[in-house]
Amino acid sequence: MNIYDIAREAGVSIATVSRVINGSNKVSESTKKKVLDLVEKYQYSPNAFARGLGLGTMKTIGVLCADISNLYISEAMAHIEHGLHDYGFNSLLCCTGYDHQDKENGVKLLLSRNVDALILLGSHYTEQDDSANEYIYQAAKTVPIFMVDSVLHGENIYSIACDDYDITKLLAQKLLDSGTKSPIFLYRHDSYTCRQKIKAITDACREKGIAFGDDRVFLCPVGISGCVKTLKKAEGLLSFDTVMCDNDLLAASTLQYAQEKDFSVPEDLRVTGYDFTILSLTTTPLLTTIDNKVEHVARAVVDTLVLRLNNEIISQKTIFSADIISGRSI
Amino acid sequence: MNIYDIAREAGVSIATVSRVINGSNKVSESTKKKVLDLVEKYQYSPNAFARGLGLGTMKTIGVLCADISNLYISEAMAHIEHGLHDYGFNSLLCCTGYDHQDKENGVKLLLSRNVDALILLGSHYTEQDDSANEYIYQAAKTVPIFMVDSVLHGENIYSIACDDYDITKLLAQKLLDSGTKSPIFLYRHDSYTCRQKIKAITDACREKGIAFGDDRVFLCPVGISGCVKTLKKAEGLLSFDTVMCDNDLLAASTLQYAQEKDFSVPEDLRVTGYDFTILSLTTTPLLTTIDNKVEHVARAVVDTLVLRLNNEIISQKTIFSADIISGRSI
Repeated sequence: MNIYDIAREAGVSIATVSRVINGSNKVSESTKKKVLDLVEKYQYSPNAFARGLGLGTMKTIGVLCADISNLYISEAMAHIEHGLHDYGFNSLLCCTGYDHQDKENGVKLLLSRNVDALILLGSHYTEQDDSANEYIYQAAKTVPIFMVDSVLHGENIYSIACDDYDITKLLAQKLLDSGTKSPIFLYRHDSYTCRQKIKAITDACREKGIAFGDDRVFLCPVGISGCVKTLKKAEGLLSFDTVMCDNDLLAASTLQYAQEKDFSVPEDLRVTGYDFTILSLTTTPLLTTIDNKVEHVARAVVDTLVLRLNNEIISQKTIFSADIISGRSI
Repeated sequence: MNIYDIAREAGVSIATVSRVINGSNKVSESTKKKVLDLVEKYQYSPNAFARGLGLGTMKTIGVLCADISNLYISEAMAHIEHGLHDYGFNSLLCCTGYDHQDKENGVKLLLSRNVDALILLGSHYTEQDDSANEYIYQAAKTVPIFMVDSVLHGENIYSIACDDYDITKLLAQKLLDSGTKSPIFLYRHDSYTCRQKIKAITDACREKGIAFGDDRVFLCPVGISGCVKTLKKAEGLLSFDTVMCDNDLLAASTLQYAQEKDFSVPEDLRVTGYDFTILSLTTTPLLTTIDNKVEHVARAVVDTLVLRLNNEIISQKTIFSADIISGRSI
C-alpha cells in the first residue's frame, strides 16, 4: 500500500494526500477524513513517505524551458510551480532559448546547483537526431529527468505528454471529410510534437489520396508579421484552402493575414490552432484548436516526480488524450 | 569610475560590460574593443566588480510573482531571467497567487533559501494599507528588494516601474477630447498600478467636468465570461460609451461582449487595453493599448540589482514613460 493507492481509493490526487498528511488547511474536512481513514485502515506510514520526500530538507527542482513568455509554457509552468509548492518543493527556473548549446548549458547550470530532479518543459528538448540528446541521457545518470510535452526513451527519464499524433490525425480527417482539398502546415520551431503533427497530417492526407509533402510545410519567422509574410510567399508557390498551425499564435496571425487579404474565415480559408490558449478565445472568429490538457499534464509531472523521488515505481511514459475545441474558424 | 560610467561612455548596458569582462563570446568584436579600451583608459578594476558580484559563488535571486501565466508577468520574467543569466545569476521562482498571506509565505520561503536579493514582480505587491507591506520592510532588512511595476518607499527597497498615472491621464484626455462622454474602467485585481489608473481617469474627467466615481469602476470575475457578465450587469446600472481596461485580456474580452451585443467597435463602443501584449495584436479590431515598456523595465531591474549587489550607489526609484499604441478600437 503506497500513497498512490491511497490517493486512488480516496479519489483524490497524491498532492491532496500529501497535504492531509502534512496538516495543510487547504483541504476540506470531508476529504481530510476520507484520507485519514484510509491511512488508518491500511496502516500506511506517512513518515516513510515524508522521509522519502526529504521534508525539512526542501528539495529543489530545476525547470528548463525555451521561452517562459510562450503561452503554453507559462501556463504549464504556473501549474507545475503550484504543484511543487504544494509538496514544499522549490523550483529553479532556467530559460534556455532554442539553441542546442544553450540547452546543454542550462542543464549543466542546474545540475551544478544540486537540483534533485530536472523538468525539461516543452517539446523542444527532444531532438530528431538522437545523438543530440546525449546530454539528457548523461544528466539522467545524476538526477531523474521529466520530459514535458515530448517523449524520450532512456533510463531515469520520464515522459509526460499528449497524443499529438492521434488528435492531429483526427483533426486532419475532419477537415478533409468536410471539404479541405489543399492544407498547409505552419510552425515556428522544430520540435518533437511538431514532427508528430506533420506525420499525422501526411498520413491522413495519404489515406484520402491527397498530396501532402514537405512543400506544404512552412517554417515562419518570428512575430505576426513573420507569419503573414510566409503566407504571402506560400501563395506564389501553391494554392491552399486550409492552414493548420503548430500553435494558436500562428493561427491568430493567419487570421490577420486573412483580414489583410479580405478573405472570409472559414468560407475562403479554414484555420486551426493548437494549445487552447487565451488567444483562441479572443480572436474573431474564435479559433478551432486542440486542448492538449496543459493542467493534467502539469499535475501528472509533479505527481510522477514526487513518486519517483520517493522511490516508488512509476511508468516511464504517461500519455493523455487531447480534444478538439470547436471554434468558428473551420 | 565604476562599471556604470564605463557602460554609459561605451553606449552599452552594464550587462554587456560584464559580459566583456567575463570573456563571453556573445559580444561583437567592436563592442568588446570599445569596452576594453575604456577599462584600460580609466584603469577600471574588473576584479573588484567580479568580487562584488561574487562570481564563482553563483548568486541566486528570488523572484516572486502572483501568476506566471499572466501575459505581462511571463514576458517580464523572460527578460529578467535572461538578464540574470547574462550575469551568471540563478533565479528561484515562486508564484504566490493574490492572497496576502501567500505573498508573505512566498517571501519567507525564498529568504529561507538564502537568496541574495528579492524581486517582487508585478504591481500586486504594494498594498494600499501600508501596514500590510510590513513583511516587505522586514525582508528588506535581510536582502535588497526590487519592486517591479509598483512603487514602495523604504530602506533597501528599489522600485522600477512605468508612469501609469501620466499615460492613463493622457489616454483619458485623448478619449474625452474625441467624443467619449461616459467611460467606465474594468479591472481584475486590485493593485498599485490599478489605483494609479483610476486616479488618472478620475482627474482627467474632473478637468472636463465629467462625473467619474466609484460606480464607474468594475471588478471582473475570472475569465472572458466573467468580464462579459460584468459588462451586462453594468448596462443595467448606467450607460457607457467607452471601456478602459486594466489589461489587454479584459479589453479583448470586452470585444467579445461587443460582438455578442452586435455593437461596432469603435463606432458604438470604444475599448482600450493595457500592457501591449500579443492579445492586442490578434483581436479584431486591433486594440488601442499602452506600451508600458516591459523590456526596458526588466533590463533596468537586472542592471539596478547588479549594481546594488556590487555596493554601487543606485537610485531608489526608476520610472519609465509609457506610450499609447494606436489600434483601431477607439
